[in-house]
Amino acid sequence: MSLQAIWAAGRPVLNGWLAIPNSFTAETMAHQGWDSLTVDMQHGITDYLAAVPMLTAIGTRPVVPVVRVPWLDLGIIMKSLDAGALGVICPMINNAAEAQRFVAALRYPPLGVRSFGPIRATLAHGADYPAKANDLVTGFAMIETKEALEHLDEIMSVPGLDAIYIGPTDLALALGAEPRLDPIDPRVIETIAHILARAKAHGLRAGIHNASVEHALKMVGIGFDFVTAGSDARFVAAGAAQTVSAFRAGRGEAARKAASGGGY
Amino acid sequence: MSLQAIWAAGRPVLNGWLAIPNSFTAETMAHQGWDSLTVDMQHGITDYLAAVPMLTAIGTRPVVPVVRVPWLDLGIIMKSLDAGALGVICPMINNAAEAQRFVAALRYPPLGVRSFGPIRATLAHGADYPAKANDLVTGFAMIETKEALEHLDEIMSVPGLDAIYIGPTDLALALGAEPRLDPIDPRVIETIAHILARAKAHGLRAGIHNASVEHALKMVGIGFDFVTAGSDARFVAAGAAQTVSAFRAGRGEAARKAASGGGY
Amino acid sequence: MSLQAIWAAGRPVLNGWLAIPNSFTAETMAHQGWDSLTVDMQHGITDYLAAVPMLTAIGTRPVVPVVRVPWLDLGIIMKSLDAGALGVICPMINNAAEAQRFVAALRYPPLGVRSFGPIRATLAHGADYPAKANDLVTGFAMIETKEALEHLDEIMSVPGLDAIYIGPTDLALALGAEPRLDPIDPRVIETIAHILARAKAHGLRAGIHNASVEHALKMVGIGFDFVTAGSDARFVAAGAAQTVSAFRAGRGEAARKAASGGGY
Amino acid sequence: MSLQAIWAAGRPVLNGWLAIPNSFTAETMAHQGWDSLTVDMQHGITDYLAAVPMLTAIGTRPVVPVVRVPWLDLGIIMKSLDAGALGVICPMINNAAEAQRFVAALRYPPLGVRSFGPIRATLAHGADYPAKANDLVTGFAMIETKEALEHLDEIMSVPGLDAIYIGPTDLALALGAEPRLDPIDPRVIETIAHILARAKAHGLRAGIHNASVEHALKMVGIGFDFVTAGSDARFVAAGAAQTVSAFRAGRGEAARKAASGGGY
Amino acid sequence: MSLQAIWAAGRPVLNGWLAIPNSFTAETMAHQGWDSLTVDMQHGITDYLAAVPMLTAIGTRPVVPVVRVPWLDLGIIMKSLDAGALGVICPMINNAAEAQRFVAALRYPPLGVRSFGPIRATLAHGADYPAKANDLVTGFAMIETKEALEHLDEIMSVPGLDAIYIGPTDLALALGAEPRLDPIDPRVIETIAHILARAKAHGLRAGIHNASVEHALKMVGIGFDFVTAGSDARFVAAGAAQTVSAFRAGRGEAARKAASGGGY
Amino acid sequence: MSLQAIWAAGRPVLNGWLAIPNSFTAETMAHQGWDSLTVDMQHGITDYLAAVPMLTAIGTRPVVPVVRVPWLDLGIIMKSLDAGALGVICPMINNAAEAQRFVAALRYPPLGVRSFGPIRATLAHGADYPAKANDLVTGFAMIETKEALEHLDEIMSVPGLDAIYIGPTDLALALGAEPRLDPIDPRVIETIAHILARAKAHGLRAGIHNASVEHALKMVGIGFDFVTAGSDARFVAAGAAQTVSAFRAGRGEAARKAASGGGY
Repeated sequence: MSLQAIWAAGRPVLNGWLAIPNSFTAETMAHQGWDSLTVDMQHGITDYLAAVPMLTAIGTRPVVPVVRVPWLDLGIIMKSLDAGALGVICPMINNAAEAQRFVAALRYPPLGVRSFGPIRATLAHGADYPAKANDLVTGFAMIETKEALEHLDEIMSVPGLDAIYIGPTDLALALGAEPRLDPIDPRVIETIAHILARAKAHGLRAGIHNASVEHALKMVGIGFDFVTAGSDARFVAAGAAQTVSAFRAGRGEAARKAASGGGY
Repeated sequence: MSLQAIWAAGRPVLNGWLAIPNSFTAETMAHQGWDSLTVDMQHGITDYLAAVPMLTAIGTRPVVPVVRVPWLDLGIIMKSLDAGALGVICPMINNAAEAQRFVAALRYPPLGVRSFGPIRATLAHGADYPAKANDLVTGFAMIETKEALEHLDEIMSVPGLDAIYIGPTDLALALGAEPRLDPIDPRVIETIAHILARAKAHGLRAGIHNASVEHALKMVGIGFDFVTAGSDARFVAAGAAQTVSAFRAGRGEAARKAASGGGY
Repeated sequence: MSLQAIWAAGRPVLNGWLAIPNSFTAETMAHQGWDSLTVDMQHGITDYLAAVPMLTAIGTRPVVPVVRVPWLDLGIIMKSLDAGALGVICPMINNAAEAQRFVAALRYPPLGVRSFGPIRATLAHGADYPAKANDLVTGFAMIETKEALEHLDEIMSVPGLDAIYIGPTDLALALGAEPRLDPIDPRVIETIAHILARAKAHGLRAGIHNASVEHALKMVGIGFDFVTAGSDARFVAAGAAQTVSAFRAGRGEAARKAASGGGY
Repeated sequence: MSLQAIWAAGRPVLNGWLAIPNSFTAETMAHQGWDSLTVDMQHGITDYLAAVPMLTAIGTRPVVPVVRVPWLDLGIIMKSLDAGALGVICPMINNAAEAQRFVAALRYPPLGVRSFGPIRATLAHGADYPAKANDLVTGFAMIETKEALEHLDEIMSVPGLDAIYIGPTDLALALGAEPRLDPIDPRVIETIAHILARAKAHGLRAGIHNASVEHALKMVGIGFDFVTAGSDARFVAAGAAQTVSAFRAGRGEAARKAASGGGY
Repeated sequence: MSLQAIWAAGRPVLNGWLAIPNSFTAETMAHQGWDSLTVDMQHGITDYLAAVPMLTAIGTRPVVPVVRVPWLDLGIIMKSLDAGALGVICPMINNAAEAQRFVAALRYPPLGVRSFGPIRATLAHGADYPAKANDLVTGFAMIETKEALEHLDEIMSVPGLDAIYIGPTDLALALGAEPRLDPIDPRVIETIAHILARAKAHGLRAGIHNASVEHALKMVGIGFDFVTAGSDARFVAAGAAQTVSAFRAGRGEAARKAASGGGY
Repeated sequence: MSLQAIWAAGRPVLNGWLAIPNSFTAETMAHQGWDSLTVDMQHGITDYLAAVPMLTAIGTRPVVPVVRVPWLDLGIIMKSLDAGALGVICPMINNAAEAQRFVAALRYPPLGVRSFGPIRATLAHGADYPAKANDLVTGFAMIETKEALEHLDEIMSVPGLDAIYIGPTDLALALGAEPRLDPIDPRVIETIAHILARAKAHGLRAGIHNASVEHALKMVGIGFDFVTAGSDARFVAAGAAQTVSAFRAGRGEAARKAASGGGY
């Protein structure tokens, strides 16, 4: 199961987000029908040591394992691939040089500079992983800074780049707008459309972070290939907030009824 | 902040459930407005070593820390109190002897047999914790087996028992019904009412596990003092399942529209 | 995949042993072709918190997950089942009362007293797990003490007991022999044969711990249904010891050759 | 290095206490000159999974590894021995039956019922550990309850019991006194002397928990063989409290000087 | 609670140091009266995964959470802020370019390049954290190398730099002196005074590492705004060393008394 | 115990590899007779937080502790030294600038730029560690890329570089050959010989990764000073694979015998 296979089947990828450093939540998520799951080592509070058992947990189901690395750091990118990630999202790629460095980290020579040692990847993806790794792995360069917008075509022209990924909050900040997912600021919306158009023109896959299913569907509708909708941490916070709020509301209503002479 | 203080204020306790062995999810839950949070060391996949940082996380907010222990084992009950739990839910109390053993574990001599060493409890609850611990701590005996139902008054007569807690799924199994939360089987519903009535007659607080806010409100309505509604693990699974399902439905609709000639 | 299914197919179960508290070693073992893998929480240095990710790791492959619990403690037995173990090996069952207690812990009422909360088991074994759990789960009572030998038929007559498991080292100690796997003391060998014969007479499956493949094959040959051969920790120690020893020997030989005028 | 060897040399054992679940603090403590170090799994916030690397850390230096188990639970006692503990302190031994159960857990048959599987103990104490384990291991029954005081001679007469250990706070509670280490209540002081005298009469070693070096020296002076003085957690709290307090005092003095016209 | 608030009140900040990767020691420290606590990810043996629960533990009390990052690495700096750190100490800032890079990592655009995703920071510091983060966060550039001394004014002129922090041991090495805290070498003392003077001239806050309260008070006396005095790891080592030493001395004295005819 | 001491005694270093993030496997390996053990933080699935207890475990025996860092990142190199590593293997050193940066990280000023804070190193290697650290620590620059081969003499001329280390799989990729340990491709073999010759010419120690003892011996025979032969993870996989395969073969043979009329 790889992103390429899903795309080859003409389907967009529905991606779930793992911010909680725990293998049980990862396994729970792996059973809910996502196409891929991304272990976030950037803004999530997780790290490599926690990410490995999470990748294993994802491996209990046919879900594509992806990571977001904290930074354009070749050490963590390569380690994540060794641990079995088939997709890597790299934050804040600002120019062609950074994009080249990122792309090189994802591929074995002569295409790139990836070091050889796929310790868990061969378990997860088969003994023939070394031969197919260069094709299996998808790199997403995040486009989310002012500098990146100024070098958009340059970045997208880097040979071997597979895809770009948009973080709407950082993009908003780059444009002087309020940071929010599912953007409403026209500058952000317009820039997202522009990035998408350029990606398509360069033959790249495009992904984007969303807060809601509605927005994710809309993004698929306009051509995105990979949409994130919801994270484990947000499900916990939102589910709890709704529950508490419904309970407090219910209690208030009961109190009002009681006050007005009604019984429960 | 203690369960007694909330009850003294005439309010029922809205309790959240922590099944994920992680301090960040516990801290996230602690910010959502629950009155208390229970670290589940029985059916949750957590254990003492993970529970301690979770109790610390709960301690960042004025939420009452509770644990459910795996079994009537004095070691883990006392360790949990040392780590700062102010409530202990003990599964499957079957008779007076077990209830006595449970109650004794919760209180320092001469009331009970609790061993002295409140290593985190004094941090969390003040240097005067030793003097007030016997009053602060609430023990919930779970009533959920056939044997317990046969010894109900005997169990509830045990001096020092504070409260009972009902697990509707185990209770259902005890009654030969289908195990489900928010029960619909009349035998289970009737037995819950009976246990509640006996608890009230014995001057005990009563708690119950619920799947939905609706049921929790109903249980408060009939007199329960402590209602659990929702767990971190369920919020993850439910939130994800809804998201994926809404996305698949949205895609299906889009496909149908497209097939019938409509655009997105 | 369950032990029953393998046995129903007329095959013996080849079991691997996990003593290292780590999910990556568990996943590595899961890829080597074992029928089942047992997480040892008795003599291994692992515990529940480490066992859960190991069970997840086993779940990446069609291998039956088994645990050995530290002791006849209902809390840990039930938690292990909730975490997805399909087999439970319980040490030092000495008499019928202990065997009954063990068996009761493995089954939901009315057959037993297992508490309901299969948090990971439903992920691993399907939403219909609750309905099939009583049939899916296999309990192994370890027969390894003097007292157990004196109550052999009594133990084996306990309704619901599925299987017995022999630990040859403890059995040797019980018989006054030297503790060793792959026993050579006639008293131990004879007692193993006796236990096996009684198990078969009672319609129980029989398992045994072995140090070598040779002995495991021999045990299968005489009728054992479940044989353990090798543990992760032993593979590390043995592989390292052989490597170091071969290197030292090779260096010694080189030195001798050099001393006698030969070159490398 | 064993407790017996130190005692055979006519020296009392100075024991340090490990309440923090961390191998680095354990290793730091192991370098400070203690004769033994005790990993506290009862009131400390640690557990088996954390205890194993701590025992390894102790093993970097010739310090005797000891554990205090949470309760008279044969599973955790035996696992601790397997992990290399040479001493086991068991809380709240109340009568001869409990003492017998404790002693049996410490020794291989035919002396006791310890199960065979010394997975780390053979690394730490040599390949001949199985043969010498029954002699190497020291069991301390804690005498700290009213019930124990009533059965003192009975407990001390249990064959195979090596030593007793006094927890002055629990003992104080048992006697209706204020729980404090380094007791000043005459009833506690007198009872300690009585327990010590009976231990000596029965040929047992005696240990006691102390808050200060002064009290520990005093206890050695009256005949105790094993004295605990100070824990890692207390060193952190006390060191920090002294530092903060000295700083605040220094600032206050500086402010006063400044107010009275003086410069710094 | 922020460093700025304390400084605005005209008080110096007394900072404690956390080198032990554990949330319980962090919570213990948080109760001792420090103004701030710094999780050391450079020379401490901790890392991000352990730092997060430590920041949570600090959050149980009104103490300002600070981290020292291992290196000028934007990934770990931003992750630490996302996890709720309000101060970041960055080692070995050598020149203006490095200082600029550091400062940029601390602030959201357009002031800097910080990526948006304050996953725990919003829990710890409120839903309005994004709006106030640029003001709340304090960056300390460590001045401790020969190169930094040569570029002192250049570094301190970097817009947005809040503060500098001096590590006296590295500074000593840079000056060819013996590495020690609480320096006695005149070159080191003089250089510290020089750095402090330049910081004040540039309107920057100045912090310094100390071994003793005495030295910390002295540093506050000469104008430092932020002083570290004591770490959890040192409290363990020092407390233990003093205890053992006092015990050995006490035993020696007792032996001498005994030898000279005196009793204990 | 240091690499230098072993080399000074005229012996090659037999190095074992630790890819499993666990202190018990590290301790097990430390008892098997290796001269040194290397915690792999590059391709292994371990990280700093797990590496520290592993270094402690190695410290229970006179074995030289080495790490392989994920990348030329000064933060992790210095932290590893602080944690007690006496050797550091750094991947993919491509040119003199990178080699200089690597070498500088290993030594205190004025030789290098290492920051001062040897928190565990002083425990492990003595209070005089700071004075002797610059001599004790050995840095291995990995030569494994096309670029490195082009700058071989330049890299090897960097003052302070102690040694080089060859990863045959990456070297093979750099040469357009199949990645395999124990190379058979003449280009790889020849290049290894060339690197070794140049290292010797520059007075550097040379190390190499091997899959088998045979190859390791051969490499020692041609002049290598440091040979890795076998890793914990490979011992698990190989031991298990052999066991399962032998069992399946044994069962097949038994079946054939049975089919041909023979009994077991």
